[in-house]
Amino acid sequence: MADTASITKLREQTGAGILECRNALDDVKGDFEKALEIIKKKGVTKAAKKEQRVTAEGRIGTYIHTTGKLGVLVELNCETDFVAKNEVFQQLLKDICMQVAATKPMAVKREDIPSHIIEEQKKVFMEEAKGKPPHVAEKIISGKLDSFYKERCLLEQHFIKDNAQTIQDLLVANIAKIGENIKISRFVRFEVGEC
Amino acid sequence: MADTASITKLREQTGAGILECRNALDDVKGDFEKALEIIKKKGVTKAAKKEQRVTAEGRIGTYIHTTGKLGVLVELNCETDFVAKNEVFQQLLKDICMQVAATKPMAVKREDIPSHIIEEQKKVFMEEAKGKPPHVAEKIISGKLDSFYKERCLLEQHFIKDNAQTIQDLLVANIAKIGENIKISRFVRFEVGEC
Repeated sequence: MADTASITKLREQTGAGILECRNALDDVKGDFEKALEIIKKKGVTKAAKKEQRVTAEGRIGTYIHTTGKLGVLVELNCETDFVAKNEVFQQLLKDICMQVAATKPMAVKREDIPSHIIEEQKKVFMEEAKGKPPHVAEKIISGKLDSFYKERCLLEQHFIKDNAQTIQDLLVANIAKIGENIKISRFVRFEVGEC
Repeated sequence: MADTASITKLREQTGAGILECRNALDDVKGDFEKALEIIKKKGVTKAAKKEQRVTAEGRIGTYIHTTGKLGVLVELNCETDFVAKNEVFQQLLKDICMQVAATKPMAVKREDIPSHIIEEQKKVFMEEAKGKPPHVAEKIISGKLDSFYKERCLLEQHFIKDNAQTIQDLLVANIAKIGENIKISRFVRFEVGEC
């Protein structure tokens, strides 16, 4: 039988119900990581169903660093104003603002990065892979490009408050918790003197 | 002799010194509006001298409307961190954030409005002036374009807290008060669901 501490931990991390967490833990004989994997997969499936829903409501969040020299603005959307008022949603918005301030992402997702920046990056990586056999060079370049995306796309970044989760995971967990589609539409990050 | 109330009012509005305000009032026999004009002109001259100075310091300011559905982020620059900590500077930043939230400017100054938007506007105005003699049409179009700039460029807008001042006037007055060059570098304004 799954122990209460594991169930609680699993609920916190995934937002899934008690029964779902207990069943997942029982299915894998209490292996927390495996149970987490199962719940996450289910969550992704559930979230995917919600991802087509229109998110016209939401809130604008902000974070100004104590120095006053760094600030961010984030738009987080959901389906209803009822959810936007919710504490879980507000906390998520706060966390995303902190994330953007701390990690300096370039865009929400890959498609939002301007193509000329990708081309520049590719050139740099090609230069670095020079002299390698073509099939090796190709792998090196695509690997480096992948790392670049993971570092600069907000959704692919590791969550600063829980390194085991990406921001996409965090969204999916919150969609499961809240029961509505949630979307990060846009953000900006200003640092004094950078422009 | 200028009365104390007028001197105080003039100082508040321009940031100029007591002696300068008294002299200006005496010169125009106490006519407040004329004295204001004199001080403003002097302020512009002083400010112009400072406008070439590098503004690499400053603060990021924010304002979120109580609904949580509207937010702005503004970068206001000055020359030294000492001034950025100053109450007058901080109040100015707050005022500019409120201004941006309330009036929805498109850009800081004319040059920052993308040329395709200007072209679109011109087309609309040309359509509106259709059938008029060419020299009349030209005047109508340039007049309408000017109004468009005054409405959508932050620096040309009337200050929401004092309709007699533009934001540019407000900056000039603050440059005189503070004694350093001050610049609005950039801003963004997010409203939930607009994108």
